[in-house]
Amino acid sequence: MKFELEAIGILHSCFKQRFGIPSQARLATTARGWIEFYPPYDREEAFVGLEGFSHVWLIFQFHQSLDNEVNLTVQPPQKNGAKFGLWATRAPNRPSQIGQSLVELERIETTKAKVTLHLKGIDLVEGTPIIDIKPYLPYVDAIPEAKGGFAHQAPQPRLQVEFTECAAQQLAAIENNDADLRTLIIEVLQYDPRPIYYRKNSNKKVFSMALYDLILSFEILDERHVSVLALVPAAVGQTDTQDR
Amino acid sequence: MKFELEAIGILHSCFKQRFGIPSQARLATTARGWIEFYPPYDREEAFVGLEGFSHVWLIFQFHQSLDNEVNLTVQPPQKNGAKFGLWATRAPNRPSQIGQSLVELERIETTKAKVTLHLKGIDLVEGTPIIDIKPYLPYVDAIPEAKGGFAHQAPQPRLQVEFTECAAQQLAAIENNDADLRTLIIEVLQYDPRPIYYRKNSNKKVFSMALYDLILSFEILDERHVSVLALVPAAVGQTDTQDR
Repeated sequence: MKFELEAIGILHSCFKQRFGIPSQARLATTARGWIEFYPPYDREEAFVGLEGFSHVWLIFQFHQSLDNEVNLTVQPPQKNGAKFGLWATRAPNRPSQIGQSLVELERIETTKAKVTLHLKGIDLVEGTPIIDIKPYLPYVDAIPEAKGGFAHQAPQPRLQVEFTECAAQQLAAIENNDADLRTLIIEVLQYDPRPIYYRKNSNKKVFSMALYDLILSFEILDERHVSVLALVPAAVGQTDTQDR
Repeated sequence: MKFELEAIGILHSCFKQRFGIPSQARLATTARGWIEFYPPYDREEAFVGLEGFSHVWLIFQFHQSLDNEVNLTVQPPQKNGAKFGLWATRAPNRPSQIGQSLVELERIETTKAKVTLHLKGIDLVEGTPIIDIKPYLPYVDAIPEAKGGFAHQAPQPRLQVEFTECAAQQLAAIENNDADLRTLIIEVLQYDPRPIYYRKNSNKKVFSMALYDLILSFEILDERHVSVLALVPAAVGQTDTQDR
């Protein structure tokens, strides 16, 4: 049984590439993004009542995983090579290619009767097709006593984040700087964003990732420490093309 | 941007027609169903680790709403005609036609290396196409302090459920009877399953609905009471064809 879907909008994200995105929504509480709705779904009338909700579900397409093979067995990144069944994980390579993320609804912006949603705690990459949004209903969706199997506990921060003097100066000099950019950098780096391969089999210690229109460079110092080396404007076009 | 989806399985439900289905998952805690997965998605390896989770998300298609018009404004059944924006509701008539329900994973059954999932607390009709299932992660998905807007509180039972002597005897005589069937009847009827129209504008007081392979007849006595009149086997084919 096949059917066709159409996106209702597109997500614009502080994450310009997949590298560095936290493994679940709201692990980086300051990770911001906004949804650009396609007409007519951007009309004011479609949002009446949404202002009373603090969180929304995003139903989206894992559009960067489309060409990947679907396997019935998955090795979650944080499980050190242990294998689990596809239906016991939320791995992006799945038959539906559909993901769901629970994010904070920070602000509803209306300009010329068109609505934009501003979100916090996202874990999605720039350009993610949004298929649907639904309000979070705590009386239905919140089951704190549920058993979460092998993923019951939130991942714990692995690394302590330091800033070199140079990086601290660059952070301070960035015009739009506010406390949140510093927090975002810490939130992203503390979980160790390196793919498993680099954690285990590589001597590579210096990495760069794109955040907003910036390039963040960092060095893994040891098992417990990471140092921010630099925070510089991305080259023109750089944040649009990486990892595509 | 259009893309194609395929169902991974089909839900078999105690609810054989839409009439009487609770407005959210787990309002009827004893409402049971099971997923028949299409090969190869029914293989044991795809379920390893799922036994540690108490709840799962079902991502499904509102297949009985496909021909309905999508409106940007919705009147939720329990809101007495008040209008809300489509994105502030979970109404089935939406561009994606995709729904998500959080249900209890009661039992994982493996027969000849094929797996079937048995669920409790469903709010879906027989034959619903299942697009995806994902484990419920309480550390990500449970936000009890979230603000749920106009739908913050669970609906309260409206009606007290009584059984006529006749219905009580029929219930007792049903071979597979267990305490749960009685509980299910009460759970379904106490929220007043009548569509808004019948609550307001009709003198019709006696209704029937299909539950499993039974027909449940009930009478609305007054604003606070409903009486179960009968519980009889459905005519052959009756529960397959209603409301289609």
